[in-house]
Amino acid sequence: MKTFQLSENLLNRISDLIEEKKDTQLIKLVKDIHFADMAEIINELNQDQGTYLIKLFDSQKTSDILTELDEDVREKILKELSVKEIADEIEELDSDDAADILGELSDERKREVISEISDNNLVDDLKELLSYDEDSAGGLMAKELVKANENWSVTKCLKEIKKQGENVTRVHSIYVIDDKEKLIGRLSLKDLIASPNKKLIKDIYIPQVDSVDVNEDGEEVAKIMSKYDLEAIPVVNKRKQLVGRITIDDIVDLIKYEAEEDYLLAAGVQGDVEADDSIYELTKARLPWLFLGLIGGLGSVFILEGFEEVMSHPSYKTLFFFTPLIAAMAGNVGVQSSAIIVQGLANDIVKGSLINRLLKELGLSLINGIILGVFTIIFGLIIDLPLNLSITISLSMLCVIVVAALIGTSIPIILDKRGIDPAIATGPFITTSNDIFGIFLFFYIAKIILGF
Amino acid sequence: MKTFQLSENLLNRISDLIEEKKDTQLIKLVKDIHFADMAEIINELNQDQGTYLIKLFDSQKTSDILTELDEDVREKILKELSVKEIADEIEELDSDDAADILGELSDERKREVISEISDNNLVDDLKELLSYDEDSAGGLMAKELVKANENWSVTKCLKEIKKQGENVTRVHSIYVIDDKEKLIGRLSLKDLIASPNKKLIKDIYIPQVDSVDVNEDGEEVAKIMSKYDLEAIPVVNKRKQLVGRITIDDIVDLIKYEAEEDYLLAAGVQGDVEADDSIYELTKARLPWLFLGLIGGLGSVFILEGFEEVMSHPSYKTLFFFTPLIAAMAGNVGVQSSAIIVQGLANDIVKGSLINRLLKELGLSLINGIILGVFTIIFGLIIDLPLNLSITISLSMLCVIVVAALIGTSIPIILDKRGIDPAIATGPFITTSNDIFGIFLFFYIAKIILGF
Repeated sequence: MKTFQLSENLLNRISDLIEEKKDTQLIKLVKDIHFADMAEIINELNQDQGTYLIKLFDSQKTSDILTELDEDVREKILKELSVKEIADEIEELDSDDAADILGELSDERKREVISEISDNNLVDDLKELLSYDEDSAGGLMAKELVKANENWSVTKCLKEIKKQGENVTRVHSIYVIDDKEKLIGRLSLKDLIASPNKKLIKDIYIPQVDSVDVNEDGEEVAKIMSKYDLEAIPVVNKRKQLVGRITIDDIVDLIKYEAEEDYLLAAGVQGDVEADDSIYELTKARLPWLFLGLIGGLGSVFILEGFEEVMSHPSYKTLFFFTPLIAAMAGNVGVQSSAIIVQGLANDIVKGSLINRLLKELGLSLINGIILGVFTIIFGLIIDLPLNLSITISLSMLCVIVVAALIGTSIPIILDKRGIDPAIATGPFITTSNDIFGIFLFFYIAKIILGF
Repeated sequence: MKTFQLSENLLNRISDLIEEKKDTQLIKLVKDIHFADMAEIINELNQDQGTYLIKLFDSQKTSDILTELDEDVREKILKELSVKEIADEIEELDSDDAADILGELSDERKREVISEISDNNLVDDLKELLSYDEDSAGGLMAKELVKANENWSVTKCLKEIKKQGENVTRVHSIYVIDDKEKLIGRLSLKDLIASPNKKLIKDIYIPQVDSVDVNEDGEEVAKIMSKYDLEAIPVVNKRKQLVGRITIDDIVDLIKYEAEEDYLLAAGVQGDVEADDSIYELTKARLPWLFLGLIGGLGSVFILEGFEEVMSHPSYKTLFFFTPLIAAMAGNVGVQSSAIIVQGLANDIVKGSLINRLLKELGLSLINGIILGVFTIIFGLIIDLPLNLSITISLSMLCVIVVAALIGTSIPIILDKRGIDPAIATGPFITTSNDIFGIFLFFYIAKIILGF
């Protein structure tokens, strides 16, 4: 098996067949394509073509494709579908996917679609799921699960889980509840099959079970499931009643999504954008950080102006040639330090006091700074720079590197302690502040040493 | 359930009990701690304390803790264990985890440990697993799986899978093979239980099954499993024989690991390091990229020297104050562009020709550049900069932004087309080259406009 590679060729053939309305040929061409790949194709088609194509499939495949589409493409296609059609798709889906799609509709449309759904249990489930925060355990969970009451007999339990199992794609665990719906344990299918028919569940279940609260943050759930290698985890409400279950495939999507967001944020791109988004969306994601960089850059104009007199000094003016180098070093060192700390905080491995952390970073940056400084002095000798100037530049750069490393280390830790996502600290924020600070420090120290 | 938070307090109590050799109290204190959390504790202890503590547990828990330890801590603890002790731990583990640990030992120690293992099947499995590349499907897979021969009867099959199932933590699927061990399909437990005892497997199995080749790249396997929401996938060799199985929990670890690596790489930190690594390890990961930045910075010294005469011009010398701004803008824009492309390439959403991509980026960077340019002119008016100078600076900056965006976009695409991981393009590499290029372009265009 390989991941599907969408070719221009296939896309053109599909597009042509749609324009010519050759449905039989079209269906033959695409019928064996997986729904996740079908979604990729529809993402690339225009709105009319995409809507035309998605309507060719049966309800089950259409609904599966819908869940995999890009959000903006889905939004457009949903607009082309009738309330009845959307309701039909919703009924085919697992409750978590159904709630996600419903959640993207306008309040009015949402009500209309829900009123078209005939299954009252499903309506209740969807209303409940929609009531939770999107990024909480409740927003991630599905209502489909297999549960057994502790007072059931083995016979009754087997019959019941067979019935419940019909709605559940894959049974990860049978959860055991008491008469008040409280989650009290889990049951192994092996034990169930091996037990005498009349035995009660309360005599054979395993009373240990991990669960998460319905209001728990999704990222924390992801951390728990990946750390403890769980494939599914039950979700309980405040009264410890079993209300849903989260499976690992949803967590995989979440982990990937969060990682992408952090990666882009570190590069100064904010929000959930990708290469195929509109220029407007991309500008919105990029301009604010560029603007921050601009402000920082204009700030450094003032700092350099403050050292204008150096420009008229016959040999000290060389210092000006080193400003981009100093800015780059300050930025690079700061970003490195903060990225390592941000990553460590995300994995809970940054322990010990801030002071210890800073002492370590001090040692590290001194080593790096001295090595880079020696190299700079050698460079100075090669280009015939006066030795006192080379040494001054290297010493100032060393100070800049140390300070940049300390700033890069402490900002994320301080943000984290105040409950702010430290990921915003990496990237443009650190680079910009370190640029200004680095340039100032460089000239200031040089001024002290050279005495101009 | 919450993730475990390791407190200084707990760590100190454990450390004290170890020093006082109070085993009973120690065991009582830690016995309910999950092995993944136990590993976190041992990661923080010194080598002797960690070894002392890990030896207190039974073989099963010790081996589970071993798999979760940081690689460097595990290496140290394994050195303290005898060949026999390691062999005992290996025998407790799933074959994939066992092979991972074995793979970290020296060749001689590896042989010694293997010779201590009495189970010949396990020895064969381990030798086979060790023969695959660490980052391939073969390196990720485990040998534990449940398989059925197509010629078995239902009765025989039920008996066999019960036996096989003992070694398998969770049965995801029953894989069906022919007499030559070739994977030909899968079997649902439901169908198996519902079928008459004498029926043959070949009459009830499902002949569709996805699989990956044993030499497939691990990242590609991760992509397949997450895209198609698979919880497990069978692995076959060249002759399509079933050789193993990969489960989603290993893929979750891989996805997290890759994401972390990309994140750090974008920040100029190469390799698998974390905040708690030694100063030596961290320097090795950081210094090369800083060195690259230094080379770039020294390069820009030459470029600025080439425009030295501008310094003696009464008003044009102001251009020099803008060099950090220009370098920052070139770097920021380049990093944004390349990050978006790198992310898009990883998700296979960057389609269409390079030309179209560049045209889009051209539009995007023109919009951003014009907005930022207008702002810079306003800034110039406020600080009483001559208008022609403000306009020159803005126009040059606009060109720098456009070129930086185009470089940031095309480098990852070109690298990707040549089979090089485009992730190395983001970060220091783009920043450094854009710094130099941006500064040169800025002065060059200013020179043309102002005619100095």
